[in-house]
Amino acid sequence: MTTTPGNLFIISAPSGAGKTSLVKALLQTGIDLKLSISYTSRPARDEEADGRDYHFVSREVFEQKLKQDEFLESAQVYGNFYGTSKKWINETIVSGRDILLEIDSQGARQVRDAFPATVGIFVLPPSLEVLEKRLRNRAQDSPEAIGRRLASAREEIGHVGEYDYVIINDDLDKALQDLKCIVHAESLRMTKQLVRHHSLITQLGEVPVP
Amino acid sequence: MTTTPGNLFIISAPSGAGKTSLVKALLQTGIDLKLSISYTSRPARDEEADGRDYHFVSREVFEQKLKQDEFLESAQVYGNFYGTSKKWINETIVSGRDILLEIDSQGARQVRDAFPATVGIFVLPPSLEVLEKRLRNRAQDSPEAIGRRLASAREEIGHVGEYDYVIINDDLDKALQDLKCIVHAESLRMTKQLVRHHSLITQLGEVPVP
Repeated sequence: MTTTPGNLFIISAPSGAGKTSLVKALLQTGIDLKLSISYTSRPARDEEADGRDYHFVSREVFEQKLKQDEFLESAQVYGNFYGTSKKWINETIVSGRDILLEIDSQGARQVRDAFPATVGIFVLPPSLEVLEKRLRNRAQDSPEAIGRRLASAREEIGHVGEYDYVIINDDLDKALQDLKCIVHAESLRMTKQLVRHHSLITQLGEVPVP
Repeated sequence: MTTTPGNLFIISAPSGAGKTSLVKALLQTGIDLKLSISYTSRPARDEEADGRDYHFVSREVFEQKLKQDEFLESAQVYGNFYGTSKKWINETIVSGRDILLEIDSQGARQVRDAFPATVGIFVLPPSLEVLEKRLRNRAQDSPEAIGRRLASAREEIGHVGEYDYVIINDDLDKALQDLKCIVHAESLRMTKQLVRHHSLITQLGEVPVP
């Protein structure tokens, strides 16, 4: 039996849209989908585990991988490197598993260049008030940091038109249903189904004429 | 507020795939979607109601409408005419309602030429055995009629590649979930959402930089 290649989903959102909670809720439904774990050169925080939150590597190792073209997309944020393993993505897709990449619009563009069949999903907060409130509630941030986050959220929202689907995250349960439906509907795409049900379609196409 | 144009869904299947039951089940979920009622020149059967099953018109009226280019697609089957009203489709889509058209692959091609954004869904039976059984169970048909149906099913299945989605109708409940998910996911398409949530996106794009 031929394995149907998995779909590569990208989910992006401005900070404060609730994307992380949404992805967590999706994974908890037991959906057959693998979350891509990025490589990073930044040190692990106390609550973070290697291989679960990130693959933590030294700056030297990261730069070597970068030089060897091992990343599908990579970015430098506040002096730290982040990247997605090309090899893992390729192997996982070929094995028939769907993948979810949680990256920003810049990374999304790099991935789309390599995998044009990528399915992009953009998550928006339900209102400006909610966005501002969510950004202010992150207590550790200074007003300047909040200001920067708002500006960067605005910049990111400007890329919404580059995505295939848009989810408004007003109610988490509803947004989760939206996300599940998108993932499921994409598995029903003709090009996927013709591979998945190849023998059935061959059999049906040979319906005997009595 | 701008109305988001509705989606135009086409559902096609070989005879025996269970499409009619599936569409009936979908409409019974209370989904906000209008089934297009075809015009036909054939006489109404006892159990059929005008305006519910078809718009029954005389051959003369049908031919006049055909001449006045009132049909989005039309076909002649066993001497009877069938056609889909262009005006109704246009008005319903503009009003923001989704439409479902139950037509064959020939009609689908005509509709796609006029509405390239049409979403095509093809329904397949789970196996050749099930297809043959379903066709044989239609007691009123002679062996010759069954043979013709099988041949025409085979011909229709050859068009599966012209559709966007494929549903395997093994279990009606599962197929119904598939169909509902496709309709819902298509409503979350970026191009739809940008119109539907135009004021939200404008507001979010104007996030003030403090």
